[in-house]
Amino acid sequence: MTPRPVSNLYYFMRHSKEAPASRQELSARISHQLAFLVEVDRLKGVLRQTLLCDGSRQENSAEHSWHLALMAAVLAEHAAQPVDVTRVIRMLLVHDVVEIDAGDTFAYDLSANADRAAREQRAADRIFGLLPPEQGQELRALWDEFEAQQTPESRAANALDRLQPLLLNHQTHGGSWRTHGVNRSQVLRRMDPIRTAMPTLWPAVEDIVAHNCSLGHILPE
Amino acid sequence: MTPRPVSNLYYFMRHSKEAPASRQELSARISHQLAFLVEVDRLKGVLRQTLLCDGSRQENSAEHSWHLALMAAVLAEHAAQPVDVTRVIRMLLVHDVVEIDAGDTFAYDLSANADRAAREQRAADRIFGLLPPEQGQELRALWDEFEAQQTPESRAANALDRLQPLLLNHQTHGGSWRTHGVNRSQVLRRMDPIRTAMPTLWPAVEDIVAHNCSLGHILPE
Repeated sequence: MTPRPVSNLYYFMRHSKEAPASRQELSARISHQLAFLVEVDRLKGVLRQTLLCDGSRQENSAEHSWHLALMAAVLAEHAAQPVDVTRVIRMLLVHDVVEIDAGDTFAYDLSANADRAAREQRAADRIFGLLPPEQGQELRALWDEFEAQQTPESRAANALDRLQPLLLNHQTHGGSWRTHGVNRSQVLRRMDPIRTAMPTLWPAVEDIVAHNCSLGHILPE
Repeated sequence: MTPRPVSNLYYFMRHSKEAPASRQELSARISHQLAFLVEVDRLKGVLRQTLLCDGSRQENSAEHSWHLALMAAVLAEHAAQPVDVTRVIRMLLVHDVVEIDAGDTFAYDLSANADRAAREQRAADRIFGLLPPEQGQELRALWDEFEAQQTPESRAANALDRLQPLLLNHQTHGGSWRTHGVNRSQVLRRMDPIRTAMPTLWPAVEDIVAHNCSLGHILPE
């Protein structure tokens, strides 16, 4: 089904009580905001390698982003440095929207990760560019901050992005680790941001990895 | 696939450098936090009546919650009264988790809505009760605030919860309005919280309703 244009449907001029220039500006602003919000709906169709906890199907990047935002609200206290939880949550809400154009790149697929950055930059230009300029820049800055991994907030967000599939794989008897034959050192390297950014959670990570190694769900080195 | 217990897997005592009492407390706290975060994964399996914008399938309540949180970040400026956007976002992240037990109740199904409140209260007791007490109370308070509809934040959150399926139905040639034979006055009554809580968005709502009435996607009175 072809998405239907939102922007052509609004005729705020005949509704608003404001001056013409400002009425037109408001109309255009709302059109851009709604066009962005309709566009990001496509993130619900981007599938990840991880299975849901009940094993029923692959997770999509929209529900994954919701899960991460809620994880931030609950687990922020474990951050190694004090964080602005609000910024962590906002960052996690937008951190994957570029996948609408660029697709999800499986963490352990090294060749696909080679040109990931360039594909995602183009996607960010297009998608955040749908918004009114100052809002687009604001959300784009959050996405850039997440990618750069230079702030306590982006490091905490990244740690949660690593922890979440670990929990889901653990609930699904190894999940995507087993499907892709991932080994222990690969998993520990992938999880390492948790050790540095949310150190009080690291023992839980080690226990889950050890448990899944003992069952053969994660391969030995 | 039966969810696997998280809480029995962690043995923080042998990892932590803190005093025994505090190590045990930390271990228990993390176990409760992770048990809640694994439990809420089930929200991804709760289906709503609304179709995704591409018409491919029904939306689930987890990805719906993500969409609403992002809508709050973009559209909060339209609130009739100043709002704490952070609280609106947090509220939207948890506003549907009770559906894990209580299911999603279709907005236009009056008989199912009759005992909705009681079912959802029991669900809130159980699900938020999985968290460490003060965190459970904090998230439960957000959910209670959303249900009570007495604050600017909860009214803005509710307006977005009405606007989002309108956008999705519009993108899918009437979507759940057509499936369930919903009429114009039912839709306008359902959307009315937008008129009062986010008045600058109301002309867009009226236009979408008028457009879908003209195409027969929404029935006349």
